[in-house]
Parts: sequence; structure tokens; C-alpha cells
Amino acid sequence: MHLVEIGRVRSRLTDKATAPKSEHEGAPDALVAINPAYAEALDDLEPGATVVLITWLDRADRSTLKVHPRGDPSRPLRGVFTTRSPDRPNPLGLHEVTIRSIDNLTLTLGPLEALDGTPVVDIKPLRTINDKAS
Amino acid sequence: MHLVEIGRVRSRLTDKATAPKSEHEGAPDALVAINPAYAEALDDLEPGATVVLITWLDRADRSTLKVHPRGDPSRPLRGVFTTRSPDRPNPLGLHEVTIRSIDNLTLTLGPLEALDGTPVVDIKPLRTINDKAS
Repeated sequence: MHLVEIGRVRSRLTDKATAPKSEHEGAPDALVAINPAYAEALDDLEPGATVVLITWLDRADRSTLKVHPRGDPSRPLRGVFTTRSPDRPNPLGLHEVTIRSIDNLTLTLGPLEALDGTPVVDIKPLRTINDKAS
Repeated sequence: MHLVEIGRVRSRLTDKATAPKSEHEGAPDALVAINPAYAEALDDLEPGATVVLITWLDRADRSTLKVHPRGDPSRPLRGVFTTRSPDRPNPLGLHEVTIRSIDNLTLTLGPLEALDGTPVVDIKPLRTINDKAS
């Protein structure tokens, strides 16, 4: 089960310690530069769409099985599968983002809390419990 | 970017051609047998929770960049990043499922359209646009 990099995040966020923990905490817009090998898979993507961006959180600790939620040591340890901690066996990040613009192979989207240089592994249309028909 | 298998789907669905295409189309409940190495990461997961199960759709075609939506040749080809087709460069499946019960390392959950034997690579709490605080 080997992931290929379909693109890479370009962001002003470079420091894990100070970056927002979720996109709803002041995360900025960012760019995703798509690998030309996957250009065709972008066809029909339109500005304004909300999508799920899946990233590989390459600065995460994959040996972590329990965490203090939000890194707060006053909160009891929890199994990582009940948290959104990036530290987990497979550090996949799920990000609901809005496509702001598309310029050839560069997507501007946000808000996104992923750090600069984070590999992107998939893009999917958003589908929620309240949106079963899409 | 190498994924580890944290568990595996056990389902009565075995045939890709006849299985439902989404969990909202009559998909059954299924079991996920968690790899004992990751038992601790399950701690605090509770029946009734709705989670995002991430699978590796191991019977997908990774070379596909454009598809007819829902396999319907009367619909125009679209870039796979605008579809939920399993055929895509990184065949990750996102499944919103409810945990029905937990028996040691076996989760009963559903509804789930993934086929029997599908590797599971992550479990995350659900967080939607309408649920920003979790």
C-alpha cells in the first residue's frame, strides 16, 4: 500500500508548533501544485467547489497510539482513533477546503492548516450525511 | 509513503460488480478486525459514534484518471478528482459509518459498501463543516 504524491502544499505555514490545529482556527489559504502526471484527473474541477483534500502528514509520529487531545497534558490520554491528532499509524490528513481558483496545475484553496511541503495524495468531492445524492 | 494495515473489513459483500456504490444504497453492516498491534489506539471509541473509516480499495485501478460517473457510459468522462470513483491514483475510501458494537478487537459498524478483505488504514472522529468545535 504505497501512496503516490499527486501534488504538494505550498503554504506560509512552516512551523508545526505554531500552526493552527484545524482549518477553523485561522488557517490561511494555500496553494497545491499538482504533479503534471495527474493533470487529467483535475478536469471538471471548478472554483467554488468544496472538496476533501487528503494529505500525508509527513512530520507526524507514526508510533503514537494514545494522545492528550490537542496536546493539552491536562486532558486524559485517548486512543488516537478517537482524535484528529496527526500522530497516528497512518498520518492521513482530511481537509474540507474550498477551491478559490485554478491556474493550470496550481490550485488556490483553503482554509488549510497543512504545513508547507506536505504531500497531497487525493482530492474528492465533499459528501456528507446531509448530502447523500452526490 | 507506505500505509500499514490497521485492520481488515469482513463483509458479506464480495463482488465489486454487484456491491452498492455508496453506503447509502443498501450497504450492509460489516465487521472490522483490528490488528492487535493497534489495540491501544481504539481506546475510548464507543458504540453509537459516527466515524470516518479510511480504507485502501485494493481492487481499484490506479491508472485511471477519467471516469464515466457511476460507470454509466452515457455520462461524459470526468476527472477522477471530481468523483468518488474507487479507480484513482491513490485508492483511498472514505466511509462515514456508525459503530454498532465493539467486542475486543472486532468492530461491528455500518453501513459499509467496502468489499470483504479490504484493508483499513485509519479511523477518525467525524467532523463536518457544521461541527467545527470537535
